Amino acid sequence: MIMDELELIGQKAVAAKYEIQKLSTAQKDGALQIVADQLVADTEQILKGNEEDMERGRSKGMHPGMLDRLKLSAERIAAMAEGLRQLTKLPDPVGSVLDEFERPNGLRIKKISVPLGVIGIIYESRPNVTADAFGLCFKAGNAVILKGGSDAIASNKAIVSSIRTALTACGVVQDAVQLIESTDREVTARFMRMKQYVDVLIPRGGAGLIRAVVEGASIPVIETGTGNCHIYVDKEADLTKAIPIIINAKTQRIGVCNACESLILHRDIESTFLPALAKALREKQVEIRADQDAGAILGDGFVPATEEDFGKEYLDYIISIKTVSDVSEAIAHINHYNTGHSDAILTENQKTAQLFLDQVDSACVYVNASTRFTDGYEFGFGAEIGISTQKLHARGPMGLKELNSYKYQIIGNGQIRG
Amino acid sequence: MIMDELELIGQKAVAAKYEIQKLSTAQKDGALQIVADQLVADTEQILKGNEEDMERGRSKGMHPGMLDRLKLSAERIAAMAEGLRQLTKLPDPVGSVLDEFERPNGLRIKKISVPLGVIGIIYESRPNVTADAFGLCFKAGNAVILKGGSDAIASNKAIVSSIRTALTACGVVQDAVQLIESTDREVTARFMRMKQYVDVLIPRGGAGLIRAVVEGASIPVIETGTGNCHIYVDKEADLTKAIPIIINAKTQRIGVCNACESLILHRDIESTFLPALAKALREKQVEIRADQDAGAILGDGFVPATEEDFGKEYLDYIISIKTVSDVSEAIAHINHYNTGHSDAILTENQKTAQLFLDQVDSACVYVNASTRFTDGYEFGFGAEIGISTQKLHARGPMGLKELNSYKYQIIGNGQIRG
Repeated sequence: MIMDELELIGQKAVAAKYEIQKLSTAQKDGALQIVADQLVADTEQILKGNEEDMERGRSKGMHPGMLDRLKLSAERIAAMAEGLRQLTKLPDPVGSVLDEFERPNGLRIKKISVPLGVIGIIYESRPNVTADAFGLCFKAGNAVILKGGSDAIASNKAIVSSIRTALTACGVVQDAVQLIESTDREVTARFMRMKQYVDVLIPRGGAGLIRAVVEGASIPVIETGTGNCHIYVDKEADLTKAIPIIINAKTQRIGVCNACESLILHRDIESTFLPALAKALREKQVEIRADQDAGAILGDGFVPATEEDFGKEYLDYIISIKTVSDVSEAIAHINHYNTGHSDAILTENQKTAQLFLDQVDSACVYVNASTRFTDGYEFGFGAEIGISTQKLHARGPMGLKELNSYKYQIIGNGQIRG
Repeated sequence: MIMDELELIGQKAVAAKYEIQKLSTAQKDGALQIVADQLVADTEQILKGNEEDMERGRSKGMHPGMLDRLKLSAERIAAMAEGLRQLTKLPDPVGSVLDEFERPNGLRIKKISVPLGVIGIIYESRPNVTADAFGLCFKAGNAVILKGGSDAIASNKAIVSSIRTALTACGVVQDAVQLIESTDREVTARFMRMKQYVDVLIPRGGAGLIRAVVEGASIPVIETGTGNCHIYVDKEADLTKAIPIIINAKTQRIGVCNACESLILHRDIESTFLPALAKALREKQVEIRADQDAGAILGDGFVPATEEDFGKEYLDYIISIKTVSDVSEAIAHINHYNTGHSDAILTENQKTAQLFLDQVDSACVYVNASTRFTDGYEFGFGAEIGISTQKLHARGPMGLKELNSYKYQIIGNGQIRG
């Protein structure tokens, strides 16, 4: 790709954003239905592109887990289409009056939700993100520029081509979605600095990708996804609830950002609770990395936890254990090591729970529940573009509302400033 | 400054943010009153530091306008103190319940406003920003790290020392405010990438400073201040309102971001309206840079507008004029050249006005009023940290509320994800 093509993509996205902003909710929902139908109709084409990516992946010895993420099937394409149809049932976030007031000089000020404009999504090998990210951005009134991973390039091309065909068929500007086809890193680096065209960048993928975008971008970024999530078992915890919650948070799905990576146990309950917990964890093949106090209770066969363990998002069948003397020590440990994603306390003491809720610095703070609920669907948002771990703009699960900004509309009758 | 000192400042700010978050509204307001008193009591010390800066400025031939910005007086210090006292009258933004709902599984979810955490402010030569930025960040529950311009270093040191003395006297953590004393550019560059300590950076100053921060930072930035503001005079404008509004927006204060820099005139009213307008502008010593159509009406003595003129924030007694055939052409011109700050339409046609309100992509869009009203005080926010020209987090005037983020607090009774 020559650099001018990237420039052109930016210009087309800006032109498209003004067109999309003129569409009614019914027009957007109608287009999403037609795109869904088109994706299903183009199943054969999309699978052909995907087989090309799979073949390339196999030949270069890609990890089976990665190959599984990359693989599409008729069922997965149907699920992508269904995801778009679901979006048509959600309320349109654009045009809500967020605030309205009149000033003493008679100026009437309205604060109204508006699309962000042009959103750039930089992601890795899952091709289903392609349809998903388009759908969310479009329903929220935005144009989207996609930069997928090189591993999924043929799949992504086929999906974007299908979406653009459908948009054209229903009279919607096809540049509502564009794919950067180049897999050159230089192009990605330049894309991240196209401030004149792109309003927001959202990276979706592993910690390395997200760091690269945060470090390299001059466009405002919403940082998503890294989760070193903690569960603190207080001395006043109901221990019958504790084991099911911990097993769920750790093992229900190990590779996700809201999985629990580290346990904190109050010293007073550790000797009675830890043996039963360790048994339950080991039945699920979870390796325990414990501090000295916990290790003394576990006896043989535990792995000592290092400083590095406490800061790690394992995304694996491993959990670290830290022993504390009170809730304040637990809070300090969490605030030192967490990633601002999700942390939980298990306690029946409401005062202790409130202290934890107030002082733990995370997007989502739980009392007596699994951290796995940090999710747009579980929160009832109906859709999700990611989990924000930063504090600007949006924090925690981001749905359609979080893909909007706002503007002030001010009506006067000749006011001038004195 | 050795690099480790900067690291220490970051660590102290993080420790301070947790302390500030525990303060009640009354404690914060009490501290602000005491800081205000202390600043007045330390007038002599502060003026001594300021005279040192003024002396250095004069000896290196600093521009008189810059010297005026730098200069403090007993009255200006009293005004700084009064600004802090005003903050005590504003509602505390922390702890508002922004949303509250229960999920079918019984989880109760509360969305609550919380401080951003640690805010970094990078600014230029006005030393009054020092007290002002501290006050706003503190009232909103944040720790602040200040990096002022080297021209004002002695003034800033004296002000920060006074504030820290007062905080200590009332038992508040003095690291609620810290000043980076080094004037080394390397230190500033590293400060902008201290993501592990700083949650948000807000640059305050000229376009060059803001660009440098946006380009160099890895911490999320709120971009503020650059304003290429337009006024469009529609064919259905009430021309008796138009001249006072334009003169106010252009000349009431020329060096500010909400001043009007460019006029757009509908062709149908141009020949009747422009001669009177030009007379009024010239009486105020405003130079007109006009396109060909407007130039033909103006006759002799106009300066032709170049492409560069339309994109320029003059901050001076200069205005550009563009001629259009309809509102859509005006909107397209604005969306191409503006900085997303403030733009106005003058028209008595409500449909035309609504089209302009909906389609102009700016933080603040006006009908029949001066763009000079884009201001936290004029909006009734009671205080202002800046005008955001980006779409993430906050857009337009930012008051105390905009110096907060939110968190989700989720109460369960043993819920696990199925």
